[in-house]
Amino acid sequence: MASTEGTYRVWNVPERLLPFKMDSGEELPVLQVAYQTFGNLNAKKNNTVLVLHAFSGDSNAVSWWKTMIGPGLPIDTQKYFVVCSNVLGGCAGTTGPRSIDPATGKPYGFSFPIPSIRDMVRVQALLLDHLGVEKVLATIGGSMGGMQALEWARTFPDRLESSIVIASTTRISPQNIGFHVVGRYAIMSDPYWNGGHYPEGGGPRTGLAVARMLGHITFLSEEAMYEKFGRRIRPEKESPLAFGDEHEVESYLWHQGTKFVDRFDATTYVLLTKAMDYFDFAAGYRNLEEAFAQTRCDFLIISFTSDWLFPTEQSREMYRALLRAGRSATFAEIDTDKGHDSFLLDNPEMEQLVRAFLEARL
Amino acid sequence: MASTEGTYRVWNVPERLLPFKMDSGEELPVLQVAYQTFGNLNAKKNNTVLVLHAFSGDSNAVSWWKTMIGPGLPIDTQKYFVVCSNVLGGCAGTTGPRSIDPATGKPYGFSFPIPSIRDMVRVQALLLDHLGVEKVLATIGGSMGGMQALEWARTFPDRLESSIVIASTTRISPQNIGFHVVGRYAIMSDPYWNGGHYPEGGGPRTGLAVARMLGHITFLSEEAMYEKFGRRIRPEKESPLAFGDEHEVESYLWHQGTKFVDRFDATTYVLLTKAMDYFDFAAGYRNLEEAFAQTRCDFLIISFTSDWLFPTEQSREMYRALLRAGRSATFAEIDTDKGHDSFLLDNPEMEQLVRAFLEARL
Repeated sequence: MASTEGTYRVWNVPERLLPFKMDSGEELPVLQVAYQTFGNLNAKKNNTVLVLHAFSGDSNAVSWWKTMIGPGLPIDTQKYFVVCSNVLGGCAGTTGPRSIDPATGKPYGFSFPIPSIRDMVRVQALLLDHLGVEKVLATIGGSMGGMQALEWARTFPDRLESSIVIASTTRISPQNIGFHVVGRYAIMSDPYWNGGHYPEGGGPRTGLAVARMLGHITFLSEEAMYEKFGRRIRPEKESPLAFGDEHEVESYLWHQGTKFVDRFDATTYVLLTKAMDYFDFAAGYRNLEEAFAQTRCDFLIISFTSDWLFPTEQSREMYRALLRAGRSATFAEIDTDKGHDSFLLDNPEMEQLVRAFLEARL
Repeated sequence: MASTEGTYRVWNVPERLLPFKMDSGEELPVLQVAYQTFGNLNAKKNNTVLVLHAFSGDSNAVSWWKTMIGPGLPIDTQKYFVVCSNVLGGCAGTTGPRSIDPATGKPYGFSFPIPSIRDMVRVQALLLDHLGVEKVLATIGGSMGGMQALEWARTFPDRLESSIVIASTTRISPQNIGFHVVGRYAIMSDPYWNGGHYPEGGGPRTGLAVARMLGHITFLSEEAMYEKFGRRIRPEKESPLAFGDEHEVESYLWHQGTKFVDRFDATTYVLLTKAMDYFDFAAGYRNLEEAFAQTRCDFLIISFTSDWLFPTEQSREMYRALLRAGRSATFAEIDTDKGHDSFLLDNPEMEQLVRAFLEARL
């Protein structure tokens, strides 16, 4: 295993497991899963940590979670067998809108079905079967990754010991849906959207940049924006659309937006925001408590005081419902002014919590 | 006067007062001011209330401030002579980007200079001269209107008795600038923007709708969005870009966005957001206190607890600086869950405060 550490792999799901039926009722006749593993599965096969990426992440977990995953780090690759795969509907190797639809011989584009968080999780379970992992020590993820960590606990209650849910929610707020709506309109009203038909690397690049710029405002707390930029003016203009004097926040957002366009697909943006909008952990149950009664694992819930996108109150609500459902749960609200982004940043408190939680369970 | 009550008028600023030199250094050789008046100027000429509109307002103050202006209402048109004009750079009659540039014979478009809040206020002062009003009983405005109310107090300290500043700030936050930036990019990256050259009613309609949709999220508190829409799904799709099931918040935002496009100009959107970005009441002074030391009027500062766009803390900071500067100021933080929009809604507490404040000064 050591020689293939972190190697990017694509697993073609064998035909006997296909078609893959999605929650929308649509079926995928072909399914590929892009994944990476770090560390080794031990003899008892009880040291797997499944890392679940957020909206814009990918399978290369060590690159986007540098402070969390690696030798000696909280998700210690010398102790744990770490698995991370790109989500269904994504644009980093797993089947999604840029994949070829066998029915047409052309990319799915916007005809790709809206994936549910449960669809993503069921694909991950297939991958673990393939890797010979029956039981997971922990699932862990932030933001949309946290939604998957929650869904794992309900859909596969017998397959996991614990679940770590960071800066996440059992359902996003109407405000958060609103931000997604605006992002989708920016993309889908871009004339290069063209109903989702566009060449790789082309498409609604300006709409996608606008959507991402908006995203970056919501990832940061107001305090963090004061610290990072204040109301400072830049001497030179960075973005082609700037006029007059440019505030630093303007060039920051522009850079974030344009950088993103080179690595992310607009249709994936549209579909995954919709997946988050629809996610409602308590749907079909009388309440959240009843939904959590379906789970069996231990939970660690972490939230950040200055996160206004996935407010800490939503994590507290989750924690209370878990306790009412008689589940084992730990809740830590971390005091920070860094906003939603905190889960991706170096945060010693989060790191220590995750390290101790995992070590106690190995 | 009674017969022309509320009549929309356009005043052509006489040549002897032109060109109008803007803070940017640019000059306007022609200047028109669209305004409306309600009630009558009394014999002592001391009953004028100058109403200053917010970003998307216009001179027809009784239409957008229904609960505040009219017979028997807080700004009682039976007692006060109420004046309201469209701001410089606007799109409702006063000279702005849709006006003809005498130098070219064509609309200014994006070549219209970025107006400052002080430019707006200086145009209003010319209008009051024209109306024979030397001294104002009160200037009053919410949001961008509050910025003008502040600027009035500094630029014309001898011309006003009092100033009422609602849901406003001495300078907006980097987060708020960020939202403006995203709105401007949505507009200016729309292919119909065309460098600001577009026919009346045409132009970057989708970009402007996207910008306004985003605006409407920021006008509402998270609580208000839960109350208004929650996470409810609509049975039928309202907007042409909706797909899958549509959340109610989606159709609400879409309606707000598309409705707005029919009554507002995209270049005005771009220029007035920039005017707000640049407004910094303390710029050029050592601190806010020193800036307020230039004023002489009484202040009433009103903020709303759930306003996260112009947070109440900014109003408190304003109030404290006023007190340190030895000014007469009253600060009222109104408890409401309606967000920034509160200043335009029926709010008995605000109405009572304004009524009493004005009555005490007549």
